[in-house]
This record gives sequence, C-alpha cells and structure tokens, in this order.
Amino acid sequence: MSARTGVYVMLLHYPMVNRRGEVVTTAVTNLDLHDIARSARTYGCDAYYVVTPIEDQHALLNRILGHWAHPESAEGHPDRVSALGRIRLRHTFAEAKAEITALHGEPPEVVLTDARPHGKSSTYAELRAEFAQGRTRPLLIVFGTGWGTAPEFNQEVDRVLAPVYGPGGPGAYNHLSVRAAAAIVLDRLFGV
Amino acid sequence: MSARTGVYVMLLHYPMVNRRGEVVTTAVTNLDLHDIARSARTYGCDAYYVVTPIEDQHALLNRILGHWAHPESAEGHPDRVSALGRIRLRHTFAEAKAEITALHGEPPEVVLTDARPHGKSSTYAELRAEFAQGRTRPLLIVFGTGWGTAPEFNQEVDRVLAPVYGPGGPGAYNHLSVRAAAAIVLDRLFGV
Repeated sequence: MSARTGVYVMLLHYPMVNRRGEVVTTAVTNLDLHDIARSARTYGCDAYYVVTPIEDQHALLNRILGHWAHPESAEGHPDRVSALGRIRLRHTFAEAKAEITALHGEPPEVVLTDARPHGKSSTYAELRAEFAQGRTRPLLIVFGTGWGTAPEFNQEVDRVLAPVYGPGGPGAYNHLSVRAAAAIVLDRLFGV
Repeated sequence: MSARTGVYVMLLHYPMVNRRGEVVTTAVTNLDLHDIARSARTYGCDAYYVVTPIEDQHALLNRILGHWAHPESAEGHPDRVSALGRIRLRHTFAEAKAEITALHGEPPEVVLTDARPHGKSSTYAELRAEFAQGRTRPLLIVFGTGWGTAPEFNQEVDRVLAPVYGPGGPGAYNHLSVRAAAAIVLDRLFGV
C-alpha cells in the first residue's frame, strides 16, 4: 500500500435528486460515517470526505466525531477511532477537490459510482489495472445518496464506474445500500 | 439465477463472543436487517435468516417487519419491501438448518465467514467454481456479530471462507462492519 498514489472516498449529500427527480440535500446518517470509514480504512484510502452544505449537520457530525476522539474511545474501540480519524467533513465538493489538488499538485480524477447505467463507463478491471501499472494521478471515488447525483454534477465527473450487479445482471433487483455498494466497489478495486 | 441451488444467508446473534471472549447474545440492529436483506436480494439469495433466541427481539423485529408489510410501504418503497420479505426470523441455528434441510431433502453446507483466520479455509474462487460447475447442495452462509462465533459453534461449520482483506493483506487494518463484509462476500461469490 505504501507507494500507491492518493485514493479518496467521498459521500456526497448535495446536489442529489430525490425520487421525483428534484434536487435536494440528503441527511447524513451516523452509520454511513462508521461503515464507510471502516471500509475506506480497510482498503487503504487516504481520507473519507463527507460533504454536506448544511451547518446543522456539521454541528451534529462534529459532536459525533468529538465523542470518538475522547481517550476512552480510543482505548475501548481503537479500530473505530482509527477509521473515523480519516473522515473529513466539508461543505462542498469543490472544497474537497481543491484540498486534494493542493496536496498532490494535480487535480484528482473524479470517478462516480452509480447504480444507474451511464453511456460511457469503466470496468473495475480497467481501473485496477491502472493501479497495478503504477498509476500516479490521485483518485476521488464519489458515492451518491438519495436517488443519485443531480445532472449538474455530471460536469465534475471524469469517469463513471459500471454499476455493481448481482447474478441477475442489469434489469434484475439492484438496490444495495450505499454502505454495501461502497464496500463492494472498494473490494473490487483494491481487495486481495 | 433460476437454476441455481438454494443459497441462504444467516446473521447469527447467539452463540457469539464479546471482546473478553465470553459467550453472549448480541442485539439485533435495524440496519443489519435492511442492509443485509438488500444485499441478499441483489445477489439472488433465497432467504436471509436472522437468528436470536431472545423473545423481546423477536417482538421488536416483528413490529419492524410488520411496518414494512403495510400496503403503503410497498407502494412507496417496493425495493425495501421486496428485500425484507426474504427475512426469516428464527430462534436457533438448528431451527433454520432443519427448515432448509426439509425444503431441499439434504442439509445445507454451512460456510462461516470470519474476520479471524482459521486453519482450513476455502477461497472465494473455489466456491464460485463449484457453482459454475452446477453445484447442487444448498449453501448456508453464516455471518457472525459481536467478536465472532463462540467455539461451540465450530462443530456446525463445514467450511470457513478466507477472511476479506484490503490491499495491506493479513495483519493490516481489517475491521469491516458485518453489513460491509456480507456485501463483499456475496459479491465475491455471486457478483458479475
């Protein structure tokens, strides 16, 4: 893992669409923090960005993260603390992207994972092969919430990863939770 | 998926161990129901057994599942209802196993997935190959809770699946949630 270029995971709460296609901000959930932080940590990601513009949600999340930053938490649940320590709470996608760009000297490639099929999408094997071949450009893997990212977000996306399918393939039941989808995508890209 | 033999997922809450190695019954959580039900449904499993001996937990779970069985739920969230409909709440491992045995005319092979390494364990590729070759014996994939299954459960286990590792391999951080682990294991076995 040591020599790998930067890999970042992001859970985006705006701009999303709801089931009627309206642009909305979705709510952050405690378990999305924990589960995806643990998966990101297990698969060696550098940081897990949680993005929401809502100040109240920042206050809530900072309270949750503050609880886990207490020394007693580190003693009782070192694995939780170690995973949650990689969470970076930010207000906008642009802010997170600028931060990664400043750190690496070049903007990350933004890869969107989406349960909806897109015209052009990469396979997991393609992306995996790039890492095997010593890819240097940082990667930012974006997971959406609600009913997916709003169309206006498409301009930020460099590449779309093919949807995760079960044995039924496209058209069959495909309603994984974002926690499950994130785990599967990271395993497909970086699992051994 | 039509021709595949029976595949069952189980989330076991007893007999588990806690962090001190004591045998305990763990608590059922609402999100374990939802997330693993959705993953099990996506990957074509026949049923998702949730096993706990505690009557209070059965009452709670039946109330949750009852909520989702209302017609309004089916209208607003058909994908949730369809996934939760495959949950079978049982008191003991033996009860669930007997049910599968009766249905298929032979006992299922019991496969334990465990974050702890075991002496003899199968790879995902081995099990996947068996299905590709037309395996007929039903399969029961058991996921533990807490700090894993108690030693007394070992006698029920026919096979252990190798732990899921990130790029750091054995010895590196490996603390996936059971929801994430279940998703990854099902994807490794049945994803396309």
